[in-house]
Amino acid sequence: MSSIILDGKAVAAQLAAALATETAALKQVNGGRTPILATILVGDDPSSATYVKMKGNACRRIGMDSRTIVLPQATTTEELLEKIDELNAAPDVHGILLQHPVPHQIDERKCFDRIKTEKDVDGVTTTGFGMMAMNEPAFGSATPAGIMRLLRHYDVPIEGKRAVVVGRSPILGKPMALMLSNANATVTLCHSRTIDLEDEVRRADIVVGAVGKPHFIRASWIKEGAVVVDAGYHPGGIGDIEPDGLLGRCKAVTPVPGGVGPMTIATLVAQTLAAAQRAAKTSS
Amino acid sequence: MSSIILDGKAVAAQLAAALATETAALKQVNGGRTPILATILVGDDPSSATYVKMKGNACRRIGMDSRTIVLPQATTTEELLEKIDELNAAPDVHGILLQHPVPHQIDERKCFDRIKTEKDVDGVTTTGFGMMAMNEPAFGSATPAGIMRLLRHYDVPIEGKRAVVVGRSPILGKPMALMLSNANATVTLCHSRTIDLEDEVRRADIVVGAVGKPHFIRASWIKEGAVVVDAGYHPGGIGDIEPDGLLGRCKAVTPVPGGVGPMTIATLVAQTLAAAQRAAKTSS
Repeated sequence: MSSIILDGKAVAAQLAAALATETAALKQVNGGRTPILATILVGDDPSSATYVKMKGNACRRIGMDSRTIVLPQATTTEELLEKIDELNAAPDVHGILLQHPVPHQIDERKCFDRIKTEKDVDGVTTTGFGMMAMNEPAFGSATPAGIMRLLRHYDVPIEGKRAVVVGRSPILGKPMALMLSNANATVTLCHSRTIDLEDEVRRADIVVGAVGKPHFIRASWIKEGAVVVDAGYHPGGIGDIEPDGLLGRCKAVTPVPGGVGPMTIATLVAQTLAAAQRAAKTSS
Repeated sequence: MSSIILDGKAVAAQLAAALATETAALKQVNGGRTPILATILVGDDPSSATYVKMKGNACRRIGMDSRTIVLPQATTTEELLEKIDELNAAPDVHGILLQHPVPHQIDERKCFDRIKTEKDVDGVTTTGFGMMAMNEPAFGSATPAGIMRLLRHYDVPIEGKRAVVVGRSPILGKPMALMLSNANATVTLCHSRTIDLEDEVRRADIVVGAVGKPHFIRASWIKEGAVVVDAGYHPGGIGDIEPDGLLGRCKAVTPVPGGVGPMTIATLVAQTLAAAQRAAKTSS
């Protein structure tokens, strides 16, 4: 079997080109104003800093702007909430991204939920999650929404397929399970208390690794002809799924890196543009 | 195997007795004020009218009050939203129940979501759903929350079990899947596009019938020793699951009627009391 490479990098680049055109068009009808994504980075985690920088760059590449707010490691929940309130109120800010994870003393959920739904371009609020789950218009959590975009780009059949999502985090595994269910897959959500993970994975037509542990999902568990999506990223370009022998045996595979990561960023940018477009319509 | 009957009627009665004591206590600290559930019935569906009446009676039995608003079949979304706004603003109303389903011309989701989160004692809002899904404090959707209460009452093990939920409606199947997942089951959410439902059900340690079709799930599909929860109710006391031969072969079974139904109502009443308790605290 020749495997399809789900080339997130290429699809993201293609999407970026389209977004650049749309951004230029928006600026023309909007008095030259540039859409702005505000990113908040709390503390000094080097990978988080890198992600925030990549997201800012992705905005600028398509003609949007990004404003990064860096807060110290010792920031309190109250201080972070104040900053979010400020960005919620700023009319020139269209999207707000609070980089996950935040330092332990901060109530991340409370801070996520303080972001105005209209500006929640990273799809992290509980209301946004609920609306997405109910098939109502909402910005989906960027990583699973990016995965859905990638699967759709390659016309990967989802309806009626058995999908197994490994990991149930609030911004990855849970929304992924609901998005796949809404696309008519039969979804099993696995996690640390799943007794026989191998057996679950073995049945899957679509496997999503969203567990955050390097090579936790063994290649030998994955059935022939499955679609394999790896949302993990660990130092050294290692994903959540052991890649050995998947190529040639699976129907489609995301590379790590260059699969899910670029789609996350592209989705964030696309959702920021959509928020800016909506804001322009509302104000005109 | 001697099957446990998950006797919702008995558990609900036991809960009601506890709630009556709590309600009496609340009235004492709250200047004699009686907690009130407002129920809205739109149109003339006879089963909906019966449900609303049963819910009102359940409130009164424990010393709470209920106020039923009946709106005509031709009610518009705007008219219903206005009524909800009025109840949201009424300080003496602690809980609001909009009886599902509403007539087709009404945007039910929009109306559900207009209910203030603090008064959403039936657990129908997208925000409430999102909060429940994220393990944040929220009123759960009454039927799945009632099922969780019933399972916990009988100490049915959930962690690590394979749960299969058949049906993915916004107020039953979807929240049920997330509640079971949050209780550490490995959950598969099945629906009309599931290819081999029999095979999914056959693997389940816990089966929840939430599909709304009489005897849609065959008894022969259910494995020995499974826990069987039937959330369906159809004329003539018929559930979603064919009951033949389940007794003696399954570990635990909900009867229809007398299983899930009474727990739904008891949960609604319990959540209304909790809302009233919270309101009393806030105002004192």
